Amino acid sequence: MKTCTYLGILGGLGPMSTVYFCELLNRHTAATCDADHIDMLISSRATTPDRTAYILDKSAPDPLPVMLCEAHRLEAAGVDLIVVPCNTAHYFYDGLAKNCQVPILNIIDETCAHLLGIGVKKFGLLATEGTIHAGAYERFCTSRNLTCITPTEEEQVIISNIIFGQIKQNKPVDMDAFHGVVTSLRSRGCEKIVLGCTELSLLKKEGLNDELFVDSLDVLAYRTILACGKTPVGFPTSFEKEEVAR
Amino acid sequence: MKTCTYLGILGGLGPMSTVYFCELLNRHTAATCDADHIDMLISSRATTPDRTAYILDKSAPDPLPVMLCEAHRLEAAGVDLIVVPCNTAHYFYDGLAKNCQVPILNIIDETCAHLLGIGVKKFGLLATEGTIHAGAYERFCTSRNLTCITPTEEEQVIISNIIFGQIKQNKPVDMDAFHGVVTSLRSRGCEKIVLGCTELSLLKKEGLNDELFVDSLDVLAYRTILACGKTPVGFPTSFEKEEVAR
Repeated sequence: MKTCTYLGILGGLGPMSTVYFCELLNRHTAATCDADHIDMLISSRATTPDRTAYILDKSAPDPLPVMLCEAHRLEAAGVDLIVVPCNTAHYFYDGLAKNCQVPILNIIDETCAHLLGIGVKKFGLLATEGTIHAGAYERFCTSRNLTCITPTEEEQVIISNIIFGQIKQNKPVDMDAFHGVVTSLRSRGCEKIVLGCTELSLLKKEGLNDELFVDSLDVLAYRTILACGKTPVGFPTSFEKEEVAR
Repeated sequence: MKTCTYLGILGGLGPMSTVYFCELLNRHTAATCDADHIDMLISSRATTPDRTAYILDKSAPDPLPVMLCEAHRLEAAGVDLIVVPCNTAHYFYDGLAKNCQVPILNIIDETCAHLLGIGVKKFGLLATEGTIHAGAYERFCTSRNLTCITPTEEEQVIISNIIFGQIKQNKPVDMDAFHGVVTSLRSRGCEKIVLGCTELSLLKKEGLNDELFVDSLDVLAYRTILACGKTPVGFPTSFEKEEVAR
């Protein structure tokens, strides 16, 4: 892939995680002045119809037309790479990719590649019901001999509530309930727990163990910085392990 | 002014403060789901020529053509209000405003209006050498009977180094030196200290006293949220005082 000189971010899905992703890009790009950072255009279309609602019920408003409109806006502005900092929205990845001229990094594909790169065989997935229901990670696991373990139905209710009822509403997060689900996934043999929803990435501010958690948003940021020809700095040590393994 | 339905952010000046401004908008907009947030398009053109360098030396590359190009990009996309989350860049405000069709909120004008609204007569200004040298705040003070006090030359070196040598380079900030300048400004009768550079706004994460500091970026976020017809929540108490005073 040729080096990206102008990055397009298809965001607003949700608005908080878009901002957090941009913060990751800034914080982890080696820079001594403004001009060392990545030139980018960020579409934050907060009113994009709810992705999970549509995945679970096709009579709900379809977000794809809005996402395509925004992707085309980015293309028309001249971006040469698009990233979508939202796992759930990757349900619509094929619909976006086949209608866009510029490449779109796939956060799920990249995260699975990273897991393989650091020697993981089995991981637990924390994500929206939309991502879980769509089997979005399984699709990229089979050919890699990776096993993706998802929460039980009761556990998924807890995770969905943390995402939609707490984080997206700026409310305090029930970290005890969160860690309960994590403990359950670990007891089922998961070596790593993937934060497969960019809202859950925000929980790292509460202090999550870098050795156990793999944040899909970190992976996307890392790959984006590399794709833009910049030097990534300050990522969790697992990224160095992957570099060595390559 | 009619309610803004699609916000344009002319950013990247610098990239960090653009992200922080977007975070402020998200955090301080009353919302129960993604779609309650502001639809926006953010141009983060990190490679825009250095604003302070040009203000101090007109033989340096002129950032205005790049800023205008990005403003026109936002206009072409259909935004109905533009904000520029950077004080220094407001040196170019007139050049932008006269060449754009959509209104542009002026962070300096709004900050001075806020100071007047909460009964301030004299304030200290912490900003880049570009902003100080251009007399950017003084211009909006005279008609309001506000007095703007700026650091001494030695103190300005300290502030400039914190902005360019520390914050913009992701390095630890010398908070003792910072507070030394603040103490000096207070001894000269300043009732409030204005964070008149969006990089300095990032220092609030280090814990600055809300009663003493007025953050120009907070003011811009507050006025932007109102302009977009949303309800601002969680701002410093001085904003409530202004509301009462109006």
